[in-house]
Amino acid sequence: MKIVKVNLGERSYDIRIQSGILAELGVQCRRLGLGQRCGLITDSHVAGYYAMAAEDSLCGAGFEPVRITVPPGETSKQLRYARQCYDELARHRLERSSFIVALGGGVVGDLAGFVAATYLRGIDLIQVPTSLLAQVDSSVGGKVGINLKAGKNLVGAFHQPRLVLCDLDSLNSLPARELRAGLAEVIKYGIIFDAAFFRRLEKVMPKLLARETTALKEIVARCCAIKAEIVGQDEKEGGLRAILNFGHTIGHAIEATAGYGEFLHGEAIAIGQVLAAQLSHSRLGLPAKSVDRIRNLLAACELPISLPPQTSPRKLLRAMQLDKKVRGGEIKFVLARRLGRVEFGLPVEAAQLRQFLNNFVG
Amino acid sequence: MKIVKVNLGERSYDIRIQSGILAELGVQCRRLGLGQRCGLITDSHVAGYYAMAAEDSLCGAGFEPVRITVPPGETSKQLRYARQCYDELARHRLERSSFIVALGGGVVGDLAGFVAATYLRGIDLIQVPTSLLAQVDSSVGGKVGINLKAGKNLVGAFHQPRLVLCDLDSLNSLPARELRAGLAEVIKYGIIFDAAFFRRLEKVMPKLLARETTALKEIVARCCAIKAEIVGQDEKEGGLRAILNFGHTIGHAIEATAGYGEFLHGEAIAIGQVLAAQLSHSRLGLPAKSVDRIRNLLAACELPISLPPQTSPRKLLRAMQLDKKVRGGEIKFVLARRLGRVEFGLPVEAAQLRQFLNNFVG
Repeated sequence: MKIVKVNLGERSYDIRIQSGILAELGVQCRRLGLGQRCGLITDSHVAGYYAMAAEDSLCGAGFEPVRITVPPGETSKQLRYARQCYDELARHRLERSSFIVALGGGVVGDLAGFVAATYLRGIDLIQVPTSLLAQVDSSVGGKVGINLKAGKNLVGAFHQPRLVLCDLDSLNSLPARELRAGLAEVIKYGIIFDAAFFRRLEKVMPKLLARETTALKEIVARCCAIKAEIVGQDEKEGGLRAILNFGHTIGHAIEATAGYGEFLHGEAIAIGQVLAAQLSHSRLGLPAKSVDRIRNLLAACELPISLPPQTSPRKLLRAMQLDKKVRGGEIKFVLARRLGRVEFGLPVEAAQLRQFLNNFVG
Repeated sequence: MKIVKVNLGERSYDIRIQSGILAELGVQCRRLGLGQRCGLITDSHVAGYYAMAAEDSLCGAGFEPVRITVPPGETSKQLRYARQCYDELARHRLERSSFIVALGGGVVGDLAGFVAATYLRGIDLIQVPTSLLAQVDSSVGGKVGINLKAGKNLVGAFHQPRLVLCDLDSLNSLPARELRAGLAEVIKYGIIFDAAFFRRLEKVMPKLLARETTALKEIVARCCAIKAEIVGQDEKEGGLRAILNFGHTIGHAIEATAGYGEFLHGEAIAIGQVLAAQLSHSRLGLPAKSVDRIRNLLAACELPISLPPQTSPRKLLRAMQLDKKVRGGEIKFVLARRLGRVEFGLPVEAAQLRQFLNNFVG
């Protein structure tokens, strides 16, 4: 068992990482003294694998779970599915002492987290991430939200979970494409925070792609520890936390303009990271060799590393201007000076950005 | 000018109460250093009176307001109107540094507040309450939310405003029925916190009903001060803040079962307060004379003081069981031991409650 602590004063919590830990869900919730009823929010794909095991564990510990299932995929991060969840919670009389278990990938975690943040002005949340991306990124740190037509995560809240349970076994059922998408976020941690970790990834990547449990446990734990460190220093993205958005400014725009669901989040930010690395090279002197290493490591995961030929730089730019990080109309970037060391809040003018994007299309 | 401070550490803010203070909106926002763009959320009724004045003041101080208008009335406190607001804010590229001005009564304040709490994970909020109820109650304290079919305020957040501006002139355009509904909350402050204030209300009620500015200013300021004191001690309703719900447990159920819009909130809680006073008499020995004084003062405002004959106690009870304050299925009440002194968290069994309600129907 690996345990990573997220230190946020009275909102502190543990991330517990282990094979088979889903069976402990009920006992862990009992330890936290949570109320009897809970909403188990999941998607129809994940439900087939893990919902019964989660319910058995919860019921075995005396809880009364109410299962709420949404369709799989990014399109479920919509207000209409939040409403479906609210209505079900109200129908089953969930109270302020009740809690939500988010069982699934990043979409389920973000949606269920937003529901937990707003139902009865906020109830407790347990994250049980079943995808690599959710385990290393979205389940930790309290950012929850849903998409608007105009952009990703434009509606949301900060709502820390009481506990995160990462069951490594759940990665076995993950489609290969989703595993690779999660690796894009894993690689990000090396770029933004830890050059040694980046080197380690270059070495163990074949084992990760082969889903070797020991390698996965080490890497998931390290990613969680890095995220916990960053979030612990800056819970509400007043500063440092922005570095987690390396590759995301362009990545989000790629997702938005391609239509949600065309690219997985990790795929879009893989492209975004390559472009951010290129931009880092020209702006901050990130060595060309480092740019190559970033591109190669992403490519080793069979992740996309260039913009699709039909991309419209104009549309990408417009989508970026709606990004939450925009201030005074200025688009700001997280860029790397070298592997393991990034700077944030770096403005890039729209005209220059368009020119830069034009170079990478077609 | 009366200024009431709400002391909540770094979330502290002022409530400024004065005739004509709407004209200062822009200057006050400038003093707070808010971003350039803002969403001015209002309803079509209030907009006719005050939206242009608000916009003039904001523009005069260099802001760029985007007006978003919802229909008047409780039915606007729905997710679909929150979505309308989100879409407009995104369309006009409001950013994290942008802010929301809630210009209107309690419905607008709650809806706009919820939008501010969740758009881009939370942006700044300025409350400009134009109804008596909103000035003395809903605009202060940070509770924001929307209704579900299953009940009032079942979705929401705690999101403190940066400033509350109470323009007493806006009470002149208030329909008489709305003024009286606001007085139900005014009277509540006397019951729960301040017997001398209750006596004062018995004396000045004719002046309040005649909308004499001096009397209104004194009373609005005292109500805000009481609410600020309570919220300052218990921001997130962990304890003391519950006393603000005197009359609300039954009142909310009356609203829910009668269909939103049938009763104004203040009307429903007028009835709720009479019933809570009766229950206080039998449970805590609140003197019969005090019950009479409460009933008489509410009646002097031409507020309803008894359940409509068609009321179903069974339905009322079911609605109460969905109340956010319910815990372990137990319905808890705020009851008065004497005027100015209440106790909260008092459980009343469902069977006894139904019998009690039966006595008051038909």
